[in-house]
Amino acid sequence: MTRKVTVELGPRSYEVQVGPGLLANLGRTASAIRHVQQAVVIADSTVTGLYGRQAMHSLASAGLSAALIDFPAGEANKNLATVGKLCDKLFAVSPAVDRNCLIVALGGGVPGDVAGMVAAVALRGLRWMQCPTTLLADVDASVGGKTGVDHPAGKNLIGAFHQPSAVLIDVRTLKSLPAQELRSGLAECVKHAVIRDAELLDFVEAQAEAILACDESTMTDLVARNVEIKAHVVSADERETGQRAHLNFGHTVGHAIEAFVGYGKVTHGQAVSLGMVAACILAETKGLIDSSLRGRLEAVMGRLGLEVRLPGLDADQVWNIMQHDKKARGGRLRFVLPTGLGRVDTFDDVQEQDVKEAIRALGQPGGR
Amino acid sequence: MTRKVTVELGPRSYEVQVGPGLLANLGRTASAIRHVQQAVVIADSTVTGLYGRQAMHSLASAGLSAALIDFPAGEANKNLATVGKLCDKLFAVSPAVDRNCLIVALGGGVPGDVAGMVAAVALRGLRWMQCPTTLLADVDASVGGKTGVDHPAGKNLIGAFHQPSAVLIDVRTLKSLPAQELRSGLAECVKHAVIRDAELLDFVEAQAEAILACDESTMTDLVARNVEIKAHVVSADERETGQRAHLNFGHTVGHAIEAFVGYGKVTHGQAVSLGMVAACILAETKGLIDSSLRGRLEAVMGRLGLEVRLPGLDADQVWNIMQHDKKARGGRLRFVLPTGLGRVDTFDDVQEQDVKEAIRALGQPGGR
Repeated sequence: MTRKVTVELGPRSYEVQVGPGLLANLGRTASAIRHVQQAVVIADSTVTGLYGRQAMHSLASAGLSAALIDFPAGEANKNLATVGKLCDKLFAVSPAVDRNCLIVALGGGVPGDVAGMVAAVALRGLRWMQCPTTLLADVDASVGGKTGVDHPAGKNLIGAFHQPSAVLIDVRTLKSLPAQELRSGLAECVKHAVIRDAELLDFVEAQAEAILACDESTMTDLVARNVEIKAHVVSADERETGQRAHLNFGHTVGHAIEAFVGYGKVTHGQAVSLGMVAACILAETKGLIDSSLRGRLEAVMGRLGLEVRLPGLDADQVWNIMQHDKKARGGRLRFVLPTGLGRVDTFDDVQEQDVKEAIRALGQPGGR
Repeated sequence: MTRKVTVELGPRSYEVQVGPGLLANLGRTASAIRHVQQAVVIADSTVTGLYGRQAMHSLASAGLSAALIDFPAGEANKNLATVGKLCDKLFAVSPAVDRNCLIVALGGGVPGDVAGMVAAVALRGLRWMQCPTTLLADVDASVGGKTGVDHPAGKNLIGAFHQPSAVLIDVRTLKSLPAQELRSGLAECVKHAVIRDAELLDFVEAQAEAILACDESTMTDLVARNVEIKAHVVSADERETGQRAHLNFGHTVGHAIEAFVGYGKVTHGQAVSLGMVAACILAETKGLIDSSLRGRLEAVMGRLGLEVRLPGLDADQVWNIMQHDKKARGGRLRFVLPTGLGRVDTFDDVQEQDVKEAIRALGQPGGR
């Protein structure tokens, strides 16, 4: 029951395969890429333990020269020093890597971003393949070609746009995922529904149980539908200058909440969920939508285990963090707000007092 | 007497300006790039001392927010650690850099490669402008968008293709250049003549005195003509898969000689000159040309101060280094050989014994 989605980017177009057990096809997919005879898997230490052997076996079975290099798991290692160490390991691989070597990024967001960055800069750009193993990476990082690492001055400040040659999503890997990480991916799924696809929200509501149980068929559908939405947005705007901004729905306030609470103390999915609720409140204040959309969102997020209230938020401080982010992004505080289910637009004229009120509402048990 | 050459690369096309005193136009050119309000100059310590103040003054006069960050001069510092340190400095600039910040690479090959690499990865790609200050950088690195740093495993192993938004070549800076560095650039000029432009060789022969004196008008012509040739080759083959290989004329043997003698003990220009002579000998052996081309090349290189003989070369060792380079490049030892003045082609069938004989000839006073 493999599903295939093409990300249309002209000469950089590629195909995303989604289905259970697809890691077994890794070698076949890699060897089908033009001139590839060697593959180097880059993973973090956790993923190496879970899927390293399976990946290497599949590559070797397809007749490829294969190597695996890894780095210690954790967002703290997503930095330029790790890229340097991985380059050291890459250039020590025997036989020596050349331009026809394929990098295989195996794992969640961090291994994907880091391996993609290595692929972007090694020999001025090697082709690469993404094999995400978390729902968040499946529905978000697998489309768009963003690679990068953090810098003390901010997240993802160093990186490159570097489109993969192929993406292979084995939904069976989701079964090894902690519930909390599954939820982070689900928040992005809800986001995609709100910005582009009302029917996806129906699907998530109807299949919530099967989704939480990681039913293979349901997850294949869920991931493929989300990849389609993101692929559509990215195809229209590869370099993130226009409508790709819609993908930031829930993230303007969400990022600030994440920074306020402290990275790691609230999950990214949790922060985005709160941000989406805040954006709905702002849209209501502007008269763009009535409160029914928010009610529906809060209900489905509740069923998925995503909290929609967070006591203790300081609206002034969260606002200040947003001001700081704004500067870093070029001086404009732009909100992505829903104008209906499946539709959003960007707004530059949201008022400080309305934003603070929305954040305060997130701290109150029943909303406003 | 400014000359302008457009490098045609579709949406990534840009203009190269060549002329004396152009550094004074830096600010005006930078501020004409869309949305640019801030510029960060990246230079090495030598160039900062020579031209840093002038560059900053020009940027500030054009109303741009300007900063200068630098790193210690020398090829030994062309590495990923320097990129990291420059990113630290870049993200500490106040006001904070955003996507509309322009990186200005000021200096020769090393500052250009390093600054270009920083531009390629900071915020997933900032626009950048090249202001080369050596003849080699003027006629070679200023066209093509190659950026990168060295790794212990080899030169330029880490980098990116990242086209600049504009290139500004102030030929007046060539007057501060040591004679030996001027010669390295001249070797590339001779190379361009042999691969594409017989008339350029006439020009170099006729103007050798004015060239060596760095006459501004002559250098403007020389640089512009060379930029045109390289721009033409690169436009036809941005990612270096086909005819861009012609630019390697003289470099296959040249690189191996450089590695044999030891980097820094022979200049790049010297090594390329020897490599071009070796390529001519090989072309003669294959019956592609008679010996008159080599005679003419040796004479003009002699006038420019480029030696065409190097005693002490060990043909077997140089050959072995070429074998190693071949592996690193994907298994094929491909020679670019002249088929006439202004014409080259690539050959995969050059014999070991002929190559060794050509290298041996380089060690003998009168050639073969």
